[in-house]
Amino acid sequence: MQMLTVDLGDRSYPIYIGANLIEQPLLEKHLKGRQVMIVSNETVAPLYLEKLKSQFEVASVDTVILPDGESFKDLDHLNLIFDALLEKRHNRTTTLVALGGGVVGDMTGFAAACYQRGVTFIQVPTTLLSQVDSSVGGKTGVNHPLGKNMIGAFHQPAAVIADTAALSTLPERELSAGLAEVIKYGLIYDAAFFDWLEENMALLMQRDPAALTEAIRRSCEIKAEVVAQDERESGIRALLNLGHTFGHAIETSQGYGVWLHGEAVGTGMLMAADLSTRMGWLSNADLARIRNLLLAARLPVEAPASMTPSEFIELMSVDKKVLDGRLRLVLIPSIGDAVVTDEIDPALLNQTLTAESNLGLI
Amino acid sequence: MQMLTVDLGDRSYPIYIGANLIEQPLLEKHLKGRQVMIVSNETVAPLYLEKLKSQFEVASVDTVILPDGESFKDLDHLNLIFDALLEKRHNRTTTLVALGGGVVGDMTGFAAACYQRGVTFIQVPTTLLSQVDSSVGGKTGVNHPLGKNMIGAFHQPAAVIADTAALSTLPERELSAGLAEVIKYGLIYDAAFFDWLEENMALLMQRDPAALTEAIRRSCEIKAEVVAQDERESGIRALLNLGHTFGHAIETSQGYGVWLHGEAVGTGMLMAADLSTRMGWLSNADLARIRNLLLAARLPVEAPASMTPSEFIELMSVDKKVLDGRLRLVLIPSIGDAVVTDEIDPALLNQTLTAESNLGLI
Repeated sequence: MQMLTVDLGDRSYPIYIGANLIEQPLLEKHLKGRQVMIVSNETVAPLYLEKLKSQFEVASVDTVILPDGESFKDLDHLNLIFDALLEKRHNRTTTLVALGGGVVGDMTGFAAACYQRGVTFIQVPTTLLSQVDSSVGGKTGVNHPLGKNMIGAFHQPAAVIADTAALSTLPERELSAGLAEVIKYGLIYDAAFFDWLEENMALLMQRDPAALTEAIRRSCEIKAEVVAQDERESGIRALLNLGHTFGHAIETSQGYGVWLHGEAVGTGMLMAADLSTRMGWLSNADLARIRNLLLAARLPVEAPASMTPSEFIELMSVDKKVLDGRLRLVLIPSIGDAVVTDEIDPALLNQTLTAESNLGLI
Repeated sequence: MQMLTVDLGDRSYPIYIGANLIEQPLLEKHLKGRQVMIVSNETVAPLYLEKLKSQFEVASVDTVILPDGESFKDLDHLNLIFDALLEKRHNRTTTLVALGGGVVGDMTGFAAACYQRGVTFIQVPTTLLSQVDSSVGGKTGVNHPLGKNMIGAFHQPAAVIADTAALSTLPERELSAGLAEVIKYGLIYDAAFFDWLEENMALLMQRDPAALTEAIRRSCEIKAEVVAQDERESGIRALLNLGHTFGHAIETSQGYGVWLHGEAVGTGMLMAADLSTRMGWLSNADLARIRNLLLAARLPVEAPASMTPSEFIELMSVDKKVLDGRLRLVLIPSIGDAVVTDEIDPALLNQTLTAESNLGLI
């Protein structure tokens, strides 16, 4: 087992990474009181809920099972968690435990942020995407029909338990979606890690345990470093949104859940790289490396054919990074280095948005 | 105009108190960006919305008007605020302004806490209750069918503007309801203020401007002192909940909005005082003074006849102050002094819960 710490003063917390951690008695010491509410979904609960429950010896454990999918990440389904907490009389010392992927984690964290104005929660992510990204850093929330993650809170977990054995049951599309966020860390922060990913992508796609553990460890380490520097995203943390402004537009346009979040982010990163190259920042050779690594991870490298540039612009303009009407994007001067900029040439952006099947092939 | 400060470090903010402040240019300097969303309700908006809008010179102002009443303080109506913000493309630098009573203030503050994970908001309370209590201190939230204020956040406003002229249009029941919270400050914190209220209750009921201003000023001063000491209610702030555990049970039992919050708190304070006397803490003479001051403020002094002790206990057990199944109540050893205790004799509590028309007449 590996352990990292997200260093946030009195809100610091550990990330445990390793095989079969769900069954080990790690959680009980992180509980606030003796009440536990495990939130999971219909897909994950049959696989891991009983195992997770078995690690509690003292606590009283209740459960709420949500339907599986991004399309249920809304206020109505959030309310199912509040219903369960109140019906079972959970008080201010309760601890919520998120068992599932990013949707379960974001909703459980937001419910914990709001229930009785804030209770403790723990992340037990079971997908690669949630293990390397969404379970760490305290961003929680739900979607609104007009924008993704528009309703939420910053609320840090008390611990994160990433059980790498859970990845054995992950559908292949979700493995690829998680690898998109892994590639992101290389792109924005660590060129050597990007090199390592190029060398090891085949092993990762075969779910080699050692390779997966290393990819998760380094991803969490980078995310923990970034979050510790800028918890509330007033600066460097915004770089973690590489590909997300394009990606959220794709997700909103296609309907939540049609594209997986990681798939949309993967294509979004390629769009950001494509634009970076058109602006003269990123070399054509590096752009090709990015496209090839996404392909090696079996991620889509074309935006939906149905989306026009004007639809992209419309949807991107509700992004949380928009300030005073100016679009702000994370772009890549080189692999391992990213910047936020609002100096975007509309003509070049239009070229990226119309590139479709030629995206990244400049 | 009087000005107080709620001292919370980098989240400190001013409370302005005075006549006709809604029309004065006080707000623009507290905006974060240039977008403003005023949230009001169908009753208050026709009276004050245009006046409030007139004080903005530079900002772009949008509005959302909610139905009036506690029964609409729920997630569905909260979502109307998010709808308006997203339809009008409000970004992270927007400022929400709550124009109305406690319901509008609590919902607007919670919407501000959650929109894009947190934006700025300003309170412009137009009822006595919201001016002396709910607009100050950062407690925000909505109700759940199983419990009042069960879903919410701590989110401090950037400023509070209490326009005493707005009280001239307040229905008499709401004036009384506000005075319940004013009386609360005397009971828990300041015996001399309680004396002053006994002397000046007739003037207050006649809406004497000087008396009202003084009552609001001293109430806000006490609340600001308490909140500055204990923003997150881990200690002394809990005393502000005097009467609220009984009161919330009444509100939930009767249906939100049938009893005004202040009315339920008024009767709840008398129940807490009644129990304090039965426990040998509060003198019979002081109990009588409390009952008489509530009567002078035309507040109800009997719990609903329909409520049985077991219904009270059932509803009180979901209160946020319940810990590990033990009921905790704010009680009054003497006027001007309150404590939180979980050492409650069930037999004496039962006497209070069955006292009905004899409440406070021991």
